[in-house]
Amino acid sequence: MIVISVGIVGGTGYTGVELLRLLLRHPNVEVKALTSRTEAGRRVDDMFPSLRGHTDLQFSDLSIDLLKSCDVVFFATPHGVAMKHAEELVAANTKVIDLAADFRLQNLDQFEKWYGMQHACPDVLKDSVYGLSELNRDKIKQANVIGNPGCYPTTVQLGLAPVLKSAEALVKPESIIIDAKSGVSGAGRKASLGMIYSENADNFKAYGVAGHRHHPEIVEALENISGQKGVFDHILFVPHLVPMIRGMLSTIYVDLTEAGQAADLQALYEQFYVNEQFVDVMPAGSSPETRSVRGANELRIALYKPQPTKLVILVAQDNLVKGAAGQAVQNMNLMFGFAENAGLQNIALLP
Amino acid sequence: MIVISVGIVGGTGYTGVELLRLLLRHPNVEVKALTSRTEAGRRVDDMFPSLRGHTDLQFSDLSIDLLKSCDVVFFATPHGVAMKHAEELVAANTKVIDLAADFRLQNLDQFEKWYGMQHACPDVLKDSVYGLSELNRDKIKQANVIGNPGCYPTTVQLGLAPVLKSAEALVKPESIIIDAKSGVSGAGRKASLGMIYSENADNFKAYGVAGHRHHPEIVEALENISGQKGVFDHILFVPHLVPMIRGMLSTIYVDLTEAGQAADLQALYEQFYVNEQFVDVMPAGSSPETRSVRGANELRIALYKPQPTKLVILVAQDNLVKGAAGQAVQNMNLMFGFAENAGLQNIALLP
Amino acid sequence: MIVISVGIVGGTGYTGVELLRLLLRHPNVEVKALTSRTEAGRRVDDMFPSLRGHTDLQFSDLSIDLLKSCDVVFFATPHGVAMKHAEELVAANTKVIDLAADFRLQNLDQFEKWYGMQHACPDVLKDSVYGLSELNRDKIKQANVIGNPGCYPTTVQLGLAPVLKSAEALVKPESIIIDAKSGVSGAGRKASLGMIYSENADNFKAYGVAGHRHHPEIVEALENISGQKGVFDHILFVPHLVPMIRGMLSTIYVDLTEAGQAADLQALYEQFYVNEQFVDVMPAGSSPETRSVRGANELRIALYKPQPTKLVILVAQDNLVKGAAGQAVQNMNLMFGFAENAGLQNIALLP
Amino acid sequence: MIVISVGIVGGTGYTGVELLRLLLRHPNVEVKALTSRTEAGRRVDDMFPSLRGHTDLQFSDLSIDLLKSCDVVFFATPHGVAMKHAEELVAANTKVIDLAADFRLQNLDQFEKWYGMQHACPDVLKDSVYGLSELNRDKIKQANVIGNPGCYPTTVQLGLAPVLKSAEALVKPESIIIDAKSGVSGAGRKASLGMIYSENADNFKAYGVAGHRHHPEIVEALENISGQKGVFDHILFVPHLVPMIRGMLSTIYVDLTEAGQAADLQALYEQFYVNEQFVDVMPAGSSPETRSVRGANELRIALYKPQPTKLVILVAQDNLVKGAAGQAVQNMNLMFGFAENAGLQNIALLP
Repeated sequence: MIVISVGIVGGTGYTGVELLRLLLRHPNVEVKALTSRTEAGRRVDDMFPSLRGHTDLQFSDLSIDLLKSCDVVFFATPHGVAMKHAEELVAANTKVIDLAADFRLQNLDQFEKWYGMQHACPDVLKDSVYGLSELNRDKIKQANVIGNPGCYPTTVQLGLAPVLKSAEALVKPESIIIDAKSGVSGAGRKASLGMIYSENADNFKAYGVAGHRHHPEIVEALENISGQKGVFDHILFVPHLVPMIRGMLSTIYVDLTEAGQAADLQALYEQFYVNEQFVDVMPAGSSPETRSVRGANELRIALYKPQPTKLVILVAQDNLVKGAAGQAVQNMNLMFGFAENAGLQNIALLP
Repeated sequence: MIVISVGIVGGTGYTGVELLRLLLRHPNVEVKALTSRTEAGRRVDDMFPSLRGHTDLQFSDLSIDLLKSCDVVFFATPHGVAMKHAEELVAANTKVIDLAADFRLQNLDQFEKWYGMQHACPDVLKDSVYGLSELNRDKIKQANVIGNPGCYPTTVQLGLAPVLKSAEALVKPESIIIDAKSGVSGAGRKASLGMIYSENADNFKAYGVAGHRHHPEIVEALENISGQKGVFDHILFVPHLVPMIRGMLSTIYVDLTEAGQAADLQALYEQFYVNEQFVDVMPAGSSPETRSVRGANELRIALYKPQPTKLVILVAQDNLVKGAAGQAVQNMNLMFGFAENAGLQNIALLP
Repeated sequence: MIVISVGIVGGTGYTGVELLRLLLRHPNVEVKALTSRTEAGRRVDDMFPSLRGHTDLQFSDLSIDLLKSCDVVFFATPHGVAMKHAEELVAANTKVIDLAADFRLQNLDQFEKWYGMQHACPDVLKDSVYGLSELNRDKIKQANVIGNPGCYPTTVQLGLAPVLKSAEALVKPESIIIDAKSGVSGAGRKASLGMIYSENADNFKAYGVAGHRHHPEIVEALENISGQKGVFDHILFVPHLVPMIRGMLSTIYVDLTEAGQAADLQALYEQFYVNEQFVDVMPAGSSPETRSVRGANELRIALYKPQPTKLVILVAQDNLVKGAAGQAVQNMNLMFGFAENAGLQNIALLP
Repeated sequence: MIVISVGIVGGTGYTGVELLRLLLRHPNVEVKALTSRTEAGRRVDDMFPSLRGHTDLQFSDLSIDLLKSCDVVFFATPHGVAMKHAEELVAANTKVIDLAADFRLQNLDQFEKWYGMQHACPDVLKDSVYGLSELNRDKIKQANVIGNPGCYPTTVQLGLAPVLKSAEALVKPESIIIDAKSGVSGAGRKASLGMIYSENADNFKAYGVAGHRHHPEIVEALENISGQKGVFDHILFVPHLVPMIRGMLSTIYVDLTEAGQAADLQALYEQFYVNEQFVDVMPAGSSPETRSVRGANELRIALYKPQPTKLVILVAQDNLVKGAAGQAVQNMNLMFGFAENAGLQNIALLP
């Protein structure tokens, strides 16, 4: 059995520990390096006791030589870190999977506007592949650098791809409204007043209504999926914060064209994803619950037409798995020719 | 000081105990009767220890004579109970406030369709008043029977009234989408598998997507507010369940007309509610959190125009207070000429 | 009606906003000053939207002259602040109620050991009164400076006072074990990794097992209550963190003497607290739930003798009310001769 | 690879679905039968959408012939079901693992007293083995019928075994106090008013203080472990309900003998469990969090001596895994000679 060596940069956040949860049980992986600016020398299972008995890894300083000796490096870091090292790693034949935003947007102006920094390696960006596994599988297999999608954009793309990729125009693209809801872990593991328990429990609110970084990512991605430019600029995307740890549900509203009203959309979606093991089109009348994917690399979709001209698409995933670390591992599996579900076969934890 | 005698039918549910929380501290009220089919003879503070030290009331059987001796009777019962007794109570000069749906819909066909029963007293219904306090204040003052609004419809009406009541057409009524989220107490206090803790905690889902009883109530109410018939039939209303006890947030999306795009909607809303102590139009850029109204008879609104032609209205309330028991007490205050905020001045519990 | 002017130092924490919730509705109080090192000039309802519509107060810098013009000043600050200002305030005839630990421990060595600082005003400390309202009522009425008890010690003292103050020795003091559980708000409102939602939700743990600051406070307080020195030094106190916002339950285990085994302890407790409106001795067989006191200045006790020689005492309170701000207001009421329950009559929020 | 066929009786509860989560990924298992009195004919993934894509199993009626054709049958049923079928199954060479209480107590009087029924097969009971895997491994390997331990008793036994099995008397057995805390899933998946979300969220309480079914199980188990009869009759066991889905923490207090005070208990525990992969003795100063074992078949222990004569033992597990389904699978692995960790290698889900 092939075993590759893997590095993780930034292992102290939630995507970092989630990568470890998956990779330490992955049959084709040995985690060789785990870096942290602040925790070098500390055992990772001292910080995350859930890993006790599963690894002896310690955090180390970010050594580019150590990373170069890995077959692939995951960046579970803040935005702006991966792009500083990607070029050198690729030159050393080490593949890069960035879980932050450095390789999500091809539009450099949008990147600069929303992330407040200039891109460090536009050429690498141009050659990088957007890692929405189901939609870009062939390119991912050839890629050296992957921009792993944002959690919200994953739900939107997989929720809309079947209608946007249809030969006939089934929906009116400018009508799209995404009312999205996320568990608190989506905001990461950092000391912030807004994140503390007593500010979030037994509470619900919208945030980022005036503008959110995932909006330009969604627009660019939908343009790529549909092949249409300019028609998604005015879609609405309103995220909300749910008092739960993990889980994400996007409720997507879209106006149907006459062709869309006439189409059997349930059949269309089932057919579109018939060979996808991680995308589940539920039977008509279902409502996907976030707990049904808790801890699993799965995304569930249900469709409703409560009015003749309107389609409601419900999309649920675990924001840390299919919305982050799980999809990153899925992309790694594609890049190295492993079974696509290697290390990703866990069943969701319910209840 | 005037003190009226009050009866509560069905005091074992969450709206019942919430009425008691408010009425036992109301300066103009003596709770005289509290009925329950199943708990007659039991002290109410044995069932609800939060009331220990605040009352010696016991549940009694539903005695119509006892109720007739009250000045007003609240029905915190399942749908279909209040309409059986309203006529007799009104004849005895006892006012009725129903927290269920018996007097919410004037359209008898819709009532029969959604609640699965024929209306028992259509004539009383015709004379009853829909108890959305801020919008129907004058009629409520004269009413003998009040249909207290549903929790979701309260947020929708107060969230849309300023634009729907405007002389100019500011929004396109057929474009309205209501993505609503409620805490679990909205489903009541009953032994049901779907309601148990381990099925709801750390979870999020939509429900009733194909159709919900509050849809026809919203349609009828918006028609009355706007004076326009037929244009709201195809609005979308999609409720979701949030893992929190109390709280409700409606995110309302609506297309603006050219006049609406040009208008200063923030100013319009502030002006519309300038004299309303229970409706708070928050400053531009705010996001109303449900915890900011936890336990208080308040509703907070914020407005966004993230795209030039779209308005997003965020409306938060406590589903058990402004969405149920609090608004019922507010209506009682109006009916009896008490200060509108009597018994309703508590500040929300935060954190 | 007498109205006093009140100052609050440190209004940005949870005890600060809880004091505001209670004092803004207190009939005898005008809140005149609200200080914050970091938020001067900001409206308090901008930070805490639950207060919108209830106050126009702004935070101001800590001005000792402004505080001197108040009748009483509450310190809702970190440990060590109140003791810097108490002497000057008392000299200006302004009473002081400290919700931190500066005036809880008469033993200066213990204070220095557990709080890591020398006491700034030992003389003021000597004249200060420990503000456990029910047990020190007469002294509180005469006090100029109050050390408001810690949340855990309040449950322990009121849970044990009836047996410790009994003429006969009913319990073996050295056997006391306090297994205490608190909601997360007890840790305050501060940006700390350990406090964030995803680290605390759906989780339970002990903390401070090797030693907690409330241990010396409990020991000193039990010595004062019982009049016995030295016998409580080796009691066990183990706090735990519960994934809830508010609420505290202490489960207290104690060995009974032969006299204690023979006594009717239920009757003893009921008699001891017969005139106390904020202490509720529940009927035999009850289990006090924290939600039964959520938001209320109440403490509920239940007793069990599951084995002949052992007493189990369950004590529930809201850590922010009877365990902090509520008891502080109760003490203020005593100090100024107001009705002891003025501003404290709210019923708990259930559900 | 050997693959056995497995039956599950009562697959609609939380231990049932948890068995499925583990067994559907177990390399040596094929789940052949899944029975439910009420759901026969329904697909299991229709009831538990987390299983969609992982199984095509349907519930079937309880057919004793079908069960006899299995190598082993798990009973995830209410108390009293397994004992009706065990004899017939054993006769057919089918092994039985009961997750209810039918085979936990050898003392028939205690069984009758606490479970309100006579035992149906005392002879089978006599030959059955109590399935605390780490303590009874050799007997389990030979067993035909396993009584899988209660969740609370598992924590108590593994928490106390090292001191109770020591050659020297290290603790005073009569002093044991177990203050235990469980997540709500421990109460099962049933429609019950006491279990609903709004009655349990943001709340904490003790229950069963006067007596709990796990008390006699703990007493009998500790007698067997220590070889001492009668000394555990008066131990205290007080369970509490935590607002979380999964997780259990027992805080165990025990008086040390002089030998116990002198012993290096940390070393003793580490040595006792040195070869146990599912029992983790954490370093001194640690506090085991329930989330560190969420979904994993692990139990973590930490020791404290906050006073010279007292030992505090903290024991954390997931009540549905090591406290139920996981330990059942561990026992199955032992009975059939599989790797003890087969199907049980998942890492806990954190956050």
